[in-house]
Amino acid sequence: MKAVVYRGERSVAVEEVPDARVESPLDAVVRITTTNICGSDLHMYEGRTSVELGKVLGHENMGVVEAVGDGVSRVKVGDRVSVPFNVACGSCRNCNGGWTSFCLRTNPTDGVDGAAYGYASMGPYDGGQAELLRVPYADFNLLRLPQGTDFENDFTMLSDIFPTGFHGAVLGEVGVGDSVVVYGAGPVGLMAAHSAHLLGASRVFVVDKAPDRLKLAESIGATAIDFSQGDAVDQVLDATDGLGTDRGIECVGYQAHDPAGEEHPELVLDNLVKTVRAAGSIGVVGVYVPEDPGLDDPSSAGAIGWDYGTFFSKGQRMGTGQCPTKRYNRQLRDMIITGRATPSFIVSHELPLASAPEGYQRFDDREDGWTKVLLKP
Amino acid sequence: MKAVVYRGERSVAVEEVPDARVESPLDAVVRITTTNICGSDLHMYEGRTSVELGKVLGHENMGVVEAVGDGVSRVKVGDRVSVPFNVACGSCRNCNGGWTSFCLRTNPTDGVDGAAYGYASMGPYDGGQAELLRVPYADFNLLRLPQGTDFENDFTMLSDIFPTGFHGAVLGEVGVGDSVVVYGAGPVGLMAAHSAHLLGASRVFVVDKAPDRLKLAESIGATAIDFSQGDAVDQVLDATDGLGTDRGIECVGYQAHDPAGEEHPELVLDNLVKTVRAAGSIGVVGVYVPEDPGLDDPSSAGAIGWDYGTFFSKGQRMGTGQCPTKRYNRQLRDMIITGRATPSFIVSHELPLASAPEGYQRFDDREDGWTKVLLKP
Amino acid sequence: MKAVVYRGERSVAVEEVPDARVESPLDAVVRITTTNICGSDLHMYEGRTSVELGKVLGHENMGVVEAVGDGVSRVKVGDRVSVPFNVACGSCRNCNGGWTSFCLRTNPTDGVDGAAYGYASMGPYDGGQAELLRVPYADFNLLRLPQGTDFENDFTMLSDIFPTGFHGAVLGEVGVGDSVVVYGAGPVGLMAAHSAHLLGASRVFVVDKAPDRLKLAESIGATAIDFSQGDAVDQVLDATDGLGTDRGIECVGYQAHDPAGEEHPELVLDNLVKTVRAAGSIGVVGVYVPEDPGLDDPSSAGAIGWDYGTFFSKGQRMGTGQCPTKRYNRQLRDMIITGRATPSFIVSHELPLASAPEGYQRFDDREDGWTKVLLKP
Amino acid sequence: MKAVVYRGERSVAVEEVPDARVESPLDAVVRITTTNICGSDLHMYEGRTSVELGKVLGHENMGVVEAVGDGVSRVKVGDRVSVPFNVACGSCRNCNGGWTSFCLRTNPTDGVDGAAYGYASMGPYDGGQAELLRVPYADFNLLRLPQGTDFENDFTMLSDIFPTGFHGAVLGEVGVGDSVVVYGAGPVGLMAAHSAHLLGASRVFVVDKAPDRLKLAESIGATAIDFSQGDAVDQVLDATDGLGTDRGIECVGYQAHDPAGEEHPELVLDNLVKTVRAAGSIGVVGVYVPEDPGLDDPSSAGAIGWDYGTFFSKGQRMGTGQCPTKRYNRQLRDMIITGRATPSFIVSHELPLASAPEGYQRFDDREDGWTKVLLKP
Repeated sequence: MKAVVYRGERSVAVEEVPDARVESPLDAVVRITTTNICGSDLHMYEGRTSVELGKVLGHENMGVVEAVGDGVSRVKVGDRVSVPFNVACGSCRNCNGGWTSFCLRTNPTDGVDGAAYGYASMGPYDGGQAELLRVPYADFNLLRLPQGTDFENDFTMLSDIFPTGFHGAVLGEVGVGDSVVVYGAGPVGLMAAHSAHLLGASRVFVVDKAPDRLKLAESIGATAIDFSQGDAVDQVLDATDGLGTDRGIECVGYQAHDPAGEEHPELVLDNLVKTVRAAGSIGVVGVYVPEDPGLDDPSSAGAIGWDYGTFFSKGQRMGTGQCPTKRYNRQLRDMIITGRATPSFIVSHELPLASAPEGYQRFDDREDGWTKVLLKP
Repeated sequence: MKAVVYRGERSVAVEEVPDARVESPLDAVVRITTTNICGSDLHMYEGRTSVELGKVLGHENMGVVEAVGDGVSRVKVGDRVSVPFNVACGSCRNCNGGWTSFCLRTNPTDGVDGAAYGYASMGPYDGGQAELLRVPYADFNLLRLPQGTDFENDFTMLSDIFPTGFHGAVLGEVGVGDSVVVYGAGPVGLMAAHSAHLLGASRVFVVDKAPDRLKLAESIGATAIDFSQGDAVDQVLDATDGLGTDRGIECVGYQAHDPAGEEHPELVLDNLVKTVRAAGSIGVVGVYVPEDPGLDDPSSAGAIGWDYGTFFSKGQRMGTGQCPTKRYNRQLRDMIITGRATPSFIVSHELPLASAPEGYQRFDDREDGWTKVLLKP
Repeated sequence: MKAVVYRGERSVAVEEVPDARVESPLDAVVRITTTNICGSDLHMYEGRTSVELGKVLGHENMGVVEAVGDGVSRVKVGDRVSVPFNVACGSCRNCNGGWTSFCLRTNPTDGVDGAAYGYASMGPYDGGQAELLRVPYADFNLLRLPQGTDFENDFTMLSDIFPTGFHGAVLGEVGVGDSVVVYGAGPVGLMAAHSAHLLGASRVFVVDKAPDRLKLAESIGATAIDFSQGDAVDQVLDATDGLGTDRGIECVGYQAHDPAGEEHPELVLDNLVKTVRAAGSIGVVGVYVPEDPGLDDPSSAGAIGWDYGTFFSKGQRMGTGQCPTKRYNRQLRDMIITGRATPSFIVSHELPLASAPEGYQRFDDREDGWTKVLLKP
Repeated sequence: MKAVVYRGERSVAVEEVPDARVESPLDAVVRITTTNICGSDLHMYEGRTSVELGKVLGHENMGVVEAVGDGVSRVKVGDRVSVPFNVACGSCRNCNGGWTSFCLRTNPTDGVDGAAYGYASMGPYDGGQAELLRVPYADFNLLRLPQGTDFENDFTMLSDIFPTGFHGAVLGEVGVGDSVVVYGAGPVGLMAAHSAHLLGASRVFVVDKAPDRLKLAESIGATAIDFSQGDAVDQVLDATDGLGTDRGIECVGYQAHDPAGEEHPELVLDNLVKTVRAAGSIGVVGVYVPEDPGLDDPSSAGAIGWDYGTFFSKGQRMGTGQCPTKRYNRQLRDMIITGRATPSFIVSHELPLASAPEGYQRFDDREDGWTKVLLKP
């Protein structure tokens, strides 16, 4: 089959690889209909992870079940399904507790809980930027979708970024009537803003400097805050009578840039502490890492000197980490079906699998208008 | 009346000051029967705050109502009461939401939400290490106790450290069956360990190096971890099959010391991240500050470079800040009355008010066995 | 001042009564700008309560503060305010816990917790269908609104039915993605449906037989179920692949009628049990009573023989009772201000106070189109 | 193998039946070491269910894994395990949400969600009062225990009644400081009382009339209320200053008897409504049924005329139904291991499998001291 393969820093190729197949009684194989390039794929693309050469990439996958193992009884061949990016066993303690993002059994990597398709340090699973994908523990992991092709570009957001944005809003404890600030108007930030509205936010601010992304934020009823036009914190405080927002969501990560383009990993955390009210809460789904092979001293990446003293003095709470997709994807699917959520509003490009290298490069260049790229194998 | 007055770094005096009196229709005056010296009083005593000279100290107060204003109808003269350390208005948005520790109306200090008796930056309220105490918004703030003198040394913990330790356990999301690590076996740490048991913890580890305090931890069924005898993280991991605990509670604060006695504000946070499992949660009630007048660069105190990358990778959650005492004190009072909680186990000394200067000095010196000092005016 | 006074079964009159005034240091007097007739006022109007002759009616009140007592410091003369229908003290155990609907101090009636303005058995408080209203514990009870006259017909829903409908949805545990059935498309049912959407429901069914009310339900995106056209349960099951809904909300009460117009107090409860899925939840804000003076045996009203065996077998949960308005009204106010909620969509009539008797009569007759009547003193 | 087989009203026999064996890739076979007779087995024994003749009974099972299917990878042959009484698939919507007691896939019975071993209407699964038991979806369902034989009589409570009692306390929303009333001092009631303490109750009342059971309640620190000595409601109100308790737990079911021995299905519900405070909550794990073959009109069983009017007026909440064992059994296992829970205190008899008929008969006769019978195959 054809698949997108990692070939080193800023290099991916579409190559012929062995077909994905059923390897255990609980496996399914899914024929991919849509698979997206994720912002976190760029961490690998830019050489800032330890991903091995030859890895098939892609963790935002959906398609149609092509084959199942003997122990698969819920999902049937022919079912249209969304594949959560987490590979989860369904029977360990963390899976039992709803934390499929920290499955204790699927990732043999030392010291890491939780696995994913096609991703550095997340276990031996190939990705779905390919024609076929092997899905372990298929009955547990796969989410069934209505048959046919309706809502394809909405449903494709269910594998990762829609639940991830929603998780940010849940970790940030967003509830009815709350004011919310979202830092970052990339795909995840826009999903977080959309999710904050679903959870009942009265007002959502989205902070970024890219005009096309801020425009998308405004298209769903959020208030755009352009940090190239003035301090983000000041702008939000001005808009809230100096009080700040009830909740904050971090959708930028450690590669945060100041207006001059310099990386400052503490930047967004410091801004959140200042923007959010005392006793408020913050959800963090932008990625922070313990080690960064892109730095001279890789292990220096984890220790971020942010304004913890003020965080404590304001009695704030913070939740972090990768999204347990299964906790939210069925509910969000139903919001799409009834028309109350439309995450496809962020889709900018649909490319054939063969154009994946171009898609990676232009998305990585943050070319104007390249918000979200879907691949259609 | 007699009162304990701040007289500069490492100096307090018992002096004659004007009697506390009803100043507004919602005030009560309480004749103090027991008032404690708190670990956080030592921050002022050591000159690491901006507290003004002449301030009457003391925020852990209980006694008998001596007088009430015209608008006080629930509390009566003669009622025995516990006074939460937070001065709260009862009608602002944060009080409505149960966050009396961040009352929006009682503290005129710029940029600070929440007030307290006898404390730096927490508003103009005198403390209760005195014969009498003025209590604003008395109907809202005062907790009634059974008449008489029973449980006096248990009830005196209700004004601050028992609820504060409990708040740490609640912020750390402790539930039935959880394993919990508490860093710090000072009074708050011991209350946190006691509270973790009340919330159903199956196992509680308490980390410290003072033998008398570790002994107290063991006396309530916790497992003592002596960090002078080996790395605390290693010891807890060893005791949990390498998995770590479900929950963690920080009861040390920014003045954390390594075994060699050097201050390392990031030390306990880093240890918590390592000790607690992926998807686990951490409550922080040890004090961290945005500024520290005890440092050459006071504003450098807030930015603490701790291992945030691992915190995110493990998907942990963290709640922080001063305790909203009223949220817990009635329930904990009832646990004392029915004998299911006995926070007095930490009391080491009962002194007359006149001995307060000695009490401060010996408690500050961390003299062996000086765990918790009560003053009896 | 002029006020609407109860004069016996199906009789109210607008009469001159003594002006409301400040009677205690914590009182405020509010000049009423809008006050609504509530469906529950009709219980009194129809003579099915023990309300005394001469009572000033009206518990859905808003206006401008005219005077305040010495102990009132948060609310100022001139403030525009919404008055929650619950009269709450702000300092008892239930108020502390957020249950202002069950205040332990404001209602001297034996065996009843909770008080309200102008209502049978809910304490000695006159209502606000009048020019002026006395509000006890004003700092605690009053919700401030933006000055001016904007959103008047939306804000007037904040005193009772918008929070009450929202409470039904909260008791029914409505969350993002849920399907919900609401029984009753009266004002509270329509507010419950609106609230279910704010809480993230993917699909809301509203059951009634009045075409004008079902049309209003459809105007906010709900699916109308006309029970005069076929069994309500069958219709909802058909629309949900036979599975039923995740959640249910009861907004009818003990005076439920079958299609033939006969009263069956168990009718809606039985239908809810059948319509809602196993492990689902039900919120009940339609009124049920322990005694009904309208029956030959008043005390027979409470014992309702509904299908409890199936309720248990399906493992359902049920929450009931009067709404603690303060828990929600600030948040819902902010939803109105930002345009995300528009509860005024139910308003059918605005009358001067003098027309109250006509308003009561035609609303009680369920005249077509008389959904919600506002009085403008 | 030997097994306890249902032979008609008040008749069970130990017979030779075919060995349980692995039938699907996800099955395990467990060699039973302990299996208990449950109070709900008596519903079948007394002929008040539709259970078929020849059914192997027993849903409270533990033992050692004897064999596993190809798709079982977490559980190993030789593992000591507790078998939750619910047979759950682990991948349906209800299992995903933690409601294994309402699994949508394991029970083919029309209109019933949720399956169990050896029980009427709960699917085709044979029970574990036998030498061997087939366990479907073994990786999902089985809870691993420490190897060996320690805590055998505590661990055997993990399959049903300890989690069931705990579920009652959770549905009743028991938290730290609460006062709680438990109706029924049978095995489940005693487990509910034990659980209420684990959840932090300050005071627990247990209502029954059997002296041996009330004594057991007192042995764990509860207050015994003997309803043969006076009205239970009056006794609890007297002990709580007339206020009633915060929470209530129903552990009796529809076969409730008055002091004269007559069945009154509404009795305990009515008492709970009176005993619990306004805004309080009630958990119901005593069994209520939609139909009762023991009555002349079986379908009359479901409609119970209890005091719903007061329930609503007091704004109470109620949760019901069978326990999703997996939600609690790991945590409760850890409480046993650390000595904080000791559910074996209720064990009165340990019999060989061959004595099962005698055990059933004497337990059904409620012979004095026959609280809980364990079978040891």
